[in-house]
Amino acid sequence: MANIIKIPADVVRSQLEAVFQAWGMPKENIATTVDVMVATDLSGVDSHGLGMLPGYHQRRGRGMIKDQPDIRVVRDKPAAALIDADRSLGHPPSVMAMKLAMEKARAMGVGIVSVRNSNHFGAAGYYSRMAAEAGIVGMAMTNAPTPAMVPTFGRDPVLGTNPIAFAAPAEKNPPFSLDMATTTVAVGKLNIARRLGKAIPNGWALNTDGEVETDGAAAFAARRLTPLGGDRERGSHKGYGLATMVEILCATLSGSWSDGPGPDGKPQRTKTNVGHFFLAIDPSKVRADGEFEADLDRMIDMLHATPPVDPENPVQVAGDPEVLATATRLVDGIPIADTLIEEVRKVAVESNAPFLLA
Amino acid sequence: MANIIKIPADVVRSQLEAVFQAWGMPKENIATTVDVMVATDLSGVDSHGLGMLPGYHQRRGRGMIKDQPDIRVVRDKPAAALIDADRSLGHPPSVMAMKLAMEKARAMGVGIVSVRNSNHFGAAGYYSRMAAEAGIVGMAMTNAPTPAMVPTFGRDPVLGTNPIAFAAPAEKNPPFSLDMATTTVAVGKLNIARRLGKAIPNGWALNTDGEVETDGAAAFAARRLTPLGGDRERGSHKGYGLATMVEILCATLSGSWSDGPGPDGKPQRTKTNVGHFFLAIDPSKVRADGEFEADLDRMIDMLHATPPVDPENPVQVAGDPEVLATATRLVDGIPIADTLIEEVRKVAVESNAPFLLA
Repeated sequence: MANIIKIPADVVRSQLEAVFQAWGMPKENIATTVDVMVATDLSGVDSHGLGMLPGYHQRRGRGMIKDQPDIRVVRDKPAAALIDADRSLGHPPSVMAMKLAMEKARAMGVGIVSVRNSNHFGAAGYYSRMAAEAGIVGMAMTNAPTPAMVPTFGRDPVLGTNPIAFAAPAEKNPPFSLDMATTTVAVGKLNIARRLGKAIPNGWALNTDGEVETDGAAAFAARRLTPLGGDRERGSHKGYGLATMVEILCATLSGSWSDGPGPDGKPQRTKTNVGHFFLAIDPSKVRADGEFEADLDRMIDMLHATPPVDPENPVQVAGDPEVLATATRLVDGIPIADTLIEEVRKVAVESNAPFLLA
Repeated sequence: MANIIKIPADVVRSQLEAVFQAWGMPKENIATTVDVMVATDLSGVDSHGLGMLPGYHQRRGRGMIKDQPDIRVVRDKPAAALIDADRSLGHPPSVMAMKLAMEKARAMGVGIVSVRNSNHFGAAGYYSRMAAEAGIVGMAMTNAPTPAMVPTFGRDPVLGTNPIAFAAPAEKNPPFSLDMATTTVAVGKLNIARRLGKAIPNGWALNTDGEVETDGAAAFAARRLTPLGGDRERGSHKGYGLATMVEILCATLSGSWSDGPGPDGKPQRTKTNVGHFFLAIDPSKVRADGEFEADLDRMIDMLHATPPVDPENPVQVAGDPEVLATATRLVDGIPIADTLIEEVRKVAVESNAPFLLA
């Protein structure tokens, strides 16, 4: 097992800045991308912050990510817009898109912005939380073009882990903030079980015949995740349906599903063409000022007051773990596996950037 | 067990019309409500069409439903609006709301309409499909104020079955059309198991201690449903999070969560104040005309082409079962349990309406 080393957020920030500068990314895009990635690491979502850097480095090496993209609004209606990300890393066009959706929401009541030709945008929850922190109800989704989810009754994976994030502002409480993959678990959980040589619960993954797989190593090798619900009897058709909804809003609506038939005549998908979807609602355009936030406080309080099965394990509300992790990590630093530190060193060396995590 | 009798859709329609006329509902509201209920029965969602009539009758008797409501738009912004349903049955204000959202979408790109002071609106999927059949991407949600879902780590139910419906238009294929409760199953499934004296799968329901319940009769008595996912290990916090999102969009945003603290000082909810949320997106404001529909056809075709585990059980796409049921039932009639026919007879007699299902 890897050793965990705690590194101050500022050092992680400097390391990311150094690499992105070496790549030749514009200053503004660096600032945005690093903000998103460090906030994600602080919030405890270790898989989607610094942990993505080696993957970004690899994809950049394969020409999938452009360092100096021309990100622009290609279609603009009063409450809807389409942004072409020009193969940028996903974070800058996504922050731009959510800001534009919020602006439209403030003027019209609601705004949506689609993004096409993008890449991995980090944690979806960053963008919905960004809206909520500015008093706006926000939703963020992305398709994840690597097939990982097996549809109900199917044998092979055809959709990604397609996450849904939703956040809403309260007054007294931190925002309600949900960020979830539409698969039962993420691939990362299979990898953890593999490393530990452990079995995984029935309902997480399938084998190549489409049957339940409970061996961690075999499940990681097969990479066939179940939709949320696990199996048909327990509602996996709902998780599969939600994943398809995300695919439609992110890929179909933005035009990220436009690659034409492949050599076999079947529809194909280009892995570099990731699409996102952002929705913003200004609650003050529906309710009187402050009413929404006060009512949401009462709902959050009611949920927290639910009698728990185990008093040591109280009922939580989406966003609670991230608020707690951020408070802790701002003081203690971000826990990073030494294996990841080694991978980041390689990225720095190969990018001719200083290595700062030592 | 009940006997099933097949009754032509027109007869079901006439029976509903007769009862609503006897109640003194305005002609236009009758037409709308009957359209929604009969389409729902035709589509195979037996729990949400005629099957709701005895419940509506009961609630009307308790003064929760107004026969001649003053349904009106109380707030109107370019892309967002709020409708007060004045305690109407949910169907007329919901059709009005989705139409208004679609109108806004056609003008602005996207539109949302919130509804407050409403009642049960039938099947959420009717409204999203209504949009899709007119070339618009639609979303419909409602809160369900009878507590039935137990939050992850909790012992008591605090949220309803809070459904999410989403539909999108294709060209060659019928619309993609998802309509799902955010609980693993609906209460109706526990009732079926109770009647048959059968056990239910692990992951559907809990007992009053918050532990897994597998006895059908005991589960129906306890009425404690799990959120989609079933348990924490299999992602029930995601189903719980989605249910809370629906509650926020339907109750908090519309002002259906505004009852003030109860006698015990805790927030309370009035069961008559149901809120809905409708979203409409005009895909031709984001993509060039026809591109969205053509791309969605390719996605639906790809999903259908997924190799199945069992060739007898092919991979389906959300909406397929409803299309098939509608085609069959238009010819064969709507299958109705004789126990429900008896309940409808009672409603007709008590309402001084003719009984037409005999």
